[in-house]
Amino acid sequence: VPAIRLSELCSVLKEQGFPAQLEGPDCEVTAVNTLEDAQPGELTFLSNPKYAAQVATTQASAVILAAGVDVPAGKAAVRCAEPYAALTVSIITIHGYRQHPQWGISPQASVDASAELGEGVNLAPHATVAAGAKLGARCTLYPGAYVGEGARLGDDCVLFPNAVVYDHCVLGNRVTLHAGSVVGQDGLGYAPIGEKWLKIPQAGRAVLEDDVEIGANCAIDRATLGRTVIGAGTKFGNVCVVGHGTKIGPDCLFVGLVGLAGSVNVGRHVTLAGQVGVNGHITIADNATVAAKSGVSADIAEGETVFGYPATQLTEAKRAMIHTRKLPDLFQRIKDLEQQTAILRAQLDALTNPDDEQGD
Amino acid sequence: VPAIRLSELCSVLKEQGFPAQLEGPDCEVTAVNTLEDAQPGELTFLSNPKYAAQVATTQASAVILAAGVDVPAGKAAVRCAEPYAALTVSIITIHGYRQHPQWGISPQASVDASAELGEGVNLAPHATVAAGAKLGARCTLYPGAYVGEGARLGDDCVLFPNAVVYDHCVLGNRVTLHAGSVVGQDGLGYAPIGEKWLKIPQAGRAVLEDDVEIGANCAIDRATLGRTVIGAGTKFGNVCVVGHGTKIGPDCLFVGLVGLAGSVNVGRHVTLAGQVGVNGHITIADNATVAAKSGVSADIAEGETVFGYPATQLTEAKRAMIHTRKLPDLFQRIKDLEQQTAILRAQLDALTNPDDEQGD
Amino acid sequence: VPAIRLSELCSVLKEQGFPAQLEGPDCEVTAVNTLEDAQPGELTFLSNPKYAAQVATTQASAVILAAGVDVPAGKAAVRCAEPYAALTVSIITIHGYRQHPQWGISPQASVDASAELGEGVNLAPHATVAAGAKLGARCTLYPGAYVGEGARLGDDCVLFPNAVVYDHCVLGNRVTLHAGSVVGQDGLGYAPIGEKWLKIPQAGRAVLEDDVEIGANCAIDRATLGRTVIGAGTKFGNVCVVGHGTKIGPDCLFVGLVGLAGSVNVGRHVTLAGQVGVNGHITIADNATVAAKSGVSADIAEGETVFGYPATQLTEAKRAMIHTRKLPDLFQRIKDLEQQTAILRAQLDALTNPDDEQGD
Repeated sequence: VPAIRLSELCSVLKEQGFPAQLEGPDCEVTAVNTLEDAQPGELTFLSNPKYAAQVATTQASAVILAAGVDVPAGKAAVRCAEPYAALTVSIITIHGYRQHPQWGISPQASVDASAELGEGVNLAPHATVAAGAKLGARCTLYPGAYVGEGARLGDDCVLFPNAVVYDHCVLGNRVTLHAGSVVGQDGLGYAPIGEKWLKIPQAGRAVLEDDVEIGANCAIDRATLGRTVIGAGTKFGNVCVVGHGTKIGPDCLFVGLVGLAGSVNVGRHVTLAGQVGVNGHITIADNATVAAKSGVSADIAEGETVFGYPATQLTEAKRAMIHTRKLPDLFQRIKDLEQQTAILRAQLDALTNPDDEQGD
Repeated sequence: VPAIRLSELCSVLKEQGFPAQLEGPDCEVTAVNTLEDAQPGELTFLSNPKYAAQVATTQASAVILAAGVDVPAGKAAVRCAEPYAALTVSIITIHGYRQHPQWGISPQASVDASAELGEGVNLAPHATVAAGAKLGARCTLYPGAYVGEGARLGDDCVLFPNAVVYDHCVLGNRVTLHAGSVVGQDGLGYAPIGEKWLKIPQAGRAVLEDDVEIGANCAIDRATLGRTVIGAGTKFGNVCVVGHGTKIGPDCLFVGLVGLAGSVNVGRHVTLAGQVGVNGHITIADNATVAAKSGVSADIAEGETVFGYPATQLTEAKRAMIHTRKLPDLFQRIKDLEQQTAILRAQLDALTNPDDEQGD
Repeated sequence: VPAIRLSELCSVLKEQGFPAQLEGPDCEVTAVNTLEDAQPGELTFLSNPKYAAQVATTQASAVILAAGVDVPAGKAAVRCAEPYAALTVSIITIHGYRQHPQWGISPQASVDASAELGEGVNLAPHATVAAGAKLGARCTLYPGAYVGEGARLGDDCVLFPNAVVYDHCVLGNRVTLHAGSVVGQDGLGYAPIGEKWLKIPQAGRAVLEDDVEIGANCAIDRATLGRTVIGAGTKFGNVCVVGHGTKIGPDCLFVGLVGLAGSVNVGRHVTLAGQVGVNGHITIADNATVAAKSGVSADIAEGETVFGYPATQLTEAKRAMIHTRKLPDLFQRIKDLEQQTAILRAQLDALTNPDDEQGD
């Protein structure tokens, strides 16, 4: 069980650039936990004001707090100007990152004789490395993970259970694929011959650069020709789908159930929220953000935030959306206007042609 | 091959609380089948009036029918006030639930010496149980299923092929994961450091309570801290995605491709239809229903049915939607009004300032 | 390394019905590649005019071009009236289709004694064939692939890593399942008993006809009774979800993240673009097209193209969408009209009842 004294944690936070002050009794904490789940002897935190009321009722012994929030009686506070950063540092310090089981090269793994394995490679039972594949130092393959023919992994990659890298695809260093994710399957490449679909060999590959992390059950097509690319440091949530030949820049963040068609170009540090879809051959420039459930059918300029389907500039899209909700009222107002205008028309006609009323 | 006489089936239905009456010749049936696919010697049913015409042409020997629908000549009817319930009971009676292959502990399975296996555990070839994991009685792991370090499964759980439970996650009794579903992968937990993303260790876990059934290729994040929870009796369709720290109550029903962000709170007996998305930190109260493809970006009150994006009360949302379709017509009406108003304006000006017409 | 002279390739193209003319120096090419990624000694192509500027800067030695596009200095052109078809033929000729590793029957595969394997079946380590299953000639199962009890595969099927076919499901000839796809899991079949869900045994199966190709991480339910059907020649992208009892005709094309509920009927040669959703019990007729992200909640007629949610005829849906964007402007125009009408009203009242102004 990990354990650290709060005073010691404050020193670590200071070293990391987030000065924190201990208020209340110093004590040892063995875990960071949520306000709701924390037990005595654990450290909790308040970063979202929505949950402020829970500070009073938490069982935790200590709370990470920003300035201006009272410390509950009998508890310690780690007071920090940046509570979210302090939380991150505390989790890393107390819990650290996952330690993978060490299988060495399990005799129940299947490794082709022509594969090259770097120093310290860690292969679980039921993992497979195909002919001509190359794994860098300290790569870990969990059970059911598969590295196809001629595929190359850099150092320190992790393939969680049943993650799959197709033949000739390339992963940089420190790439993580969560369980069930697939890299390099054939995309939807067919030439129409009448009503039939003729398969076009998908001769390209998929390349994931350094420090990419991919959630569970994603699917990243290989290119028909050339490369599908996920840029260095980019992170995906679960069930993201990337079409063939799409190129994504570094440091992007894609939330769950995002789908990009083929030949899309995404710049650096782009955020795509949940269930976003992007049409083929679109360009999304650096630092753009696409709000949840939006459909992108036109290029997006640098730094822009868009929303809706088709996705347009956020403020404009929201205004249109709000007005949509007022439509039933609007229809009534127009009906009223039409009636009033008809009455005005009749009265004005009566004024200008008073004899008309008598008929002819 | 299972077989039951219709008169016997009527007795079973009566016992189960759904009194049914046999009309026409008693006979033995060997399967329940659809109107379209049923063969002679089989039992079919009509529960959706949309398919009433097919009753005349089905090859089945007998039909489960509500009152008021004629029995086709030469066929038997199992007449029941609740035909859908009668169908369910008939399928259970005649077909029963899937019998899993019995592998015992396959020598081709991989079980860590420190794992604890309950009585009658059934491990397929290529299944893996990691160190410190604990499986209750009669759990079945199909090929490629994985139970991570320190994970705990109650009694009678079933992991279909390639289903994955990450380290330290917890399944109650009678939990079923269909093929390729993943429980407990790391969520999208990163702290932004400039444009870079610093991974936050995901130190929490995922908990699936008793009688949860999860479709194929779903992905349920572990919590950053504390627990992601799927409540007892809740059922998911395929490819549902649940973010870290989200808590879902008992007896919910989520259809396919549903995505919930992190820290969502869902009450009991909530229905989310296909492709619904829910933003982070939202609360959905008991017995709420969200219609297909809706995006939930605000809390939903108890028992409410919502629709659209942002999801709002169903009737209101539908009215707004219907009016949207009439917009081109509305624009024309406004153009007409503007012209008429301009004419009225000019005529009224002419009346009140008759000299203006001569100009100056 | 494959290699072909351009003159020889032109002969092949002519034979295949796409006459092409070599312009510039004949040479040997070893690969087809994108304008951006091609190296000297490789062949590239221009089929989308959007990328015309890249023709001048590509490193390729030769370019497939339509009439009217200039050949860059020093490069050869394969001039063809149908450059996309010429590209397809060139890729097939130069690269060919993927050659699967040949494992024979790996001793690390698990095959039940009662399974029947056709001639030349190719089973990877960690692949599983359950009791009573039947595989046609030359089927290939990659690692982690699973064929359940009593399932039947025709000839030349390919199951990529961790693809799963549940018990008693049926695949025709030349069916391909990409990694992680699942065929035949139980659908969301529960009968409500108060707030509880009673599982209905899913006694039907899923049938994929000849030449179906399914992308990665898809999920196709078995039927409750009878069959879920994917018609011959139909192709799916990644993460498509099909509900129980749905029947899809031949030669359809479904892009990624498409979801169909249960009991849907889809005709032949239907296209569903990315993230489309279809409600239960809907009929989509032959040759219909549904645009990306649409939600289908009513039947679609033959050959129709629909869009939006609810999906309606494309032109109409786009008009409504465009008008939605003009709503803020429209609200202002109505406000103006209301003001003008009020002024007209007042002026007209003053004209017709001049004494009113004095009050009473």
